[in-house]
Amino acid sequence: MSRFFSQKYNRLEPYTPGEQPKERKYVKLNTNESPYPPSPRAIEMAEAASRNLQLYSDPTASALVNALADTYQVAPNEVLPTNGSDEILNFAFMAFCDAEHPALFADITYGFYSVFAELNGVPYETIPLREDFSVSIDDYINRKGTIFIANPNAPTGIALPLSEIERLLQSDPDRIVVVDEAYVDFGAESAVSLIHKYDNLLVTQTFSKSRSMAGARLGYGIACRDLIQDLNTIKYSTNPYNVNSMTMAAGVGTLSDADYTAKNCQSIIDNRAYTAKELASLGFEMTDSKANFLFAKHPVIDGKTLYTELRARGILVRHFEKPRISDYNRITVGSREQMEILIQTIRTILEENK
Amino acid sequence: MSRFFSQKYNRLEPYTPGEQPKERKYVKLNTNESPYPPSPRAIEMAEAASRNLQLYSDPTASALVNALADTYQVAPNEVLPTNGSDEILNFAFMAFCDAEHPALFADITYGFYSVFAELNGVPYETIPLREDFSVSIDDYINRKGTIFIANPNAPTGIALPLSEIERLLQSDPDRIVVVDEAYVDFGAESAVSLIHKYDNLLVTQTFSKSRSMAGARLGYGIACRDLIQDLNTIKYSTNPYNVNSMTMAAGVGTLSDADYTAKNCQSIIDNRAYTAKELASLGFEMTDSKANFLFAKHPVIDGKTLYTELRARGILVRHFEKPRISDYNRITVGSREQMEILIQTIRTILEENK
Repeated sequence: MSRFFSQKYNRLEPYTPGEQPKERKYVKLNTNESPYPPSPRAIEMAEAASRNLQLYSDPTASALVNALADTYQVAPNEVLPTNGSDEILNFAFMAFCDAEHPALFADITYGFYSVFAELNGVPYETIPLREDFSVSIDDYINRKGTIFIANPNAPTGIALPLSEIERLLQSDPDRIVVVDEAYVDFGAESAVSLIHKYDNLLVTQTFSKSRSMAGARLGYGIACRDLIQDLNTIKYSTNPYNVNSMTMAAGVGTLSDADYTAKNCQSIIDNRAYTAKELASLGFEMTDSKANFLFAKHPVIDGKTLYTELRARGILVRHFEKPRISDYNRITVGSREQMEILIQTIRTILEENK
Repeated sequence: MSRFFSQKYNRLEPYTPGEQPKERKYVKLNTNESPYPPSPRAIEMAEAASRNLQLYSDPTASALVNALADTYQVAPNEVLPTNGSDEILNFAFMAFCDAEHPALFADITYGFYSVFAELNGVPYETIPLREDFSVSIDDYINRKGTIFIANPNAPTGIALPLSEIERLLQSDPDRIVVVDEAYVDFGAESAVSLIHKYDNLLVTQTFSKSRSMAGARLGYGIACRDLIQDLNTIKYSTNPYNVNSMTMAAGVGTLSDADYTAKNCQSIIDNRAYTAKELASLGFEMTDSKANFLFAKHPVIDGKTLYTELRARGILVRHFEKPRISDYNRITVGSREQMEILIQTIRTILEENK
């Protein structure tokens, strides 16, 4: 830290993204990327955009906004694309949290929420998940603040039914609920259909997981017009050209190829079922994941050891050295071939650690 | 504004980017874009990256950081790439300004500085340019705060010599000076060479202007290691994957093609000289611009009228309805052909307004 760094960040601890080692080629199951390439239409449209980079990208992102609006059956002014969904989440912390509106989120959830709160000088409180890692909506009902719910949750993968999200929205119409649906396309219920019913709902999604565009950085928020307007005020005061033209074009291309995305999601769901069954037969306990990852622990080998042994054998998974979950590893569901290598490698490790 | 929007943004007025009308094709001289396409190497590398979007971009951006470090003869840990140079500027307001360190900048300069200050709840003071729009370094010498200097300045195009920047840096080693060099490649002196001598200097630059990559969104900061570390703390607390992989690749491609950039800069400089001479012969007064735009007023036709008349004839320039500069228009220097159309059109307008 330099002597110039503002004192207000004294307590700020940055987010740690999943490791990206370059020294060798890994089977990379640690950052919930898709094993499938982006849609050929995304590639084609990004390439066309790359030849016109001398012009600024459209700050209103209208082609992409219209395509998202069509996809989700909402109006264009109910959509805001951002530089990854981290940006829309940060905008939400900026716009809807302050000293009078602390942030509320689970003790075990996306690790960035607490960083955004610290960054923005916003007080926050964590609400413990139940013993089985499920979210208890009742624990949020009588609290004041802005609620962030990842659904499905990460790193547990557990999803709340839409009825529970709706109960939360109804319980206090003067409190914003942000539903972070980064993983929703792998089997959970989206809350997007509720935005016309509740003006206190913001849904955030991403092209990083189900749409194979993590490297393009594209997220978005969907909410009633007034909330999107607030978030646009933040955007135009931060980075009006926040989404580059290649990413915008790739997003439009991907949305025009919905069958491709649906097929890939189904493959991930099938591979998740296969992997869960195999891991169970090896003695693992898992949460009921509706995401593109499994959250697994083993009664014999501890989480850190399994992570380390897998890494030594060329497989990266994500281990969190945190209370309540240090026994677990979060394992991205990749291709069937990657999953077979994983299972075979774990089998070997378990035999060697008997 | 929704009833949920945080009170802290009561006074926030977002930045207004240059208009991007879609209803017809304009000769677009209003956002200081390059008239030349990006380097063929940029296009080629971006295309290759588009085929691997399923993987996250490298959060350390190491290939790009190394290429920038080579280009500027600095160390990799003295460079930080961002999602356009607006992002590095915002990071600087976050990291180095607060209640005790107000922001200081010219009354006429890049319009985003005051927005960043408001956004971050930072007090700021504007220092008037001299009557001729030049920056008086003496006016900054005895003030406390974090200084933002655009060099060349916008929308005036006037550049400070390096010796004046150095005098400012020396005058108070405990005060950060941010030199925003978005337009430096068109004839001004860069302060990058001073970063090893002054640990209170941050230089920001962009790929948007001289490198024909406005649509890719790529900026960067260069400073001593400690300042870059502070800015990285902000980055990893905001958006660790802030630069997408296509843009990163295009940036590396562009830097490997320095001759192409140099040739384009020379063409712009030549076209600027041609346009300035023609405008002068039509009676315009201009500042001595070292940027890829001219800042011009006419004794007979006022700024707003000229802007409106040009727009009606299919030419967009930028007019600022602001004190001291409302007589002027900022005119991007484009291709020779665009400049000839501009001059011919202005000649017609002047004749009609006699």
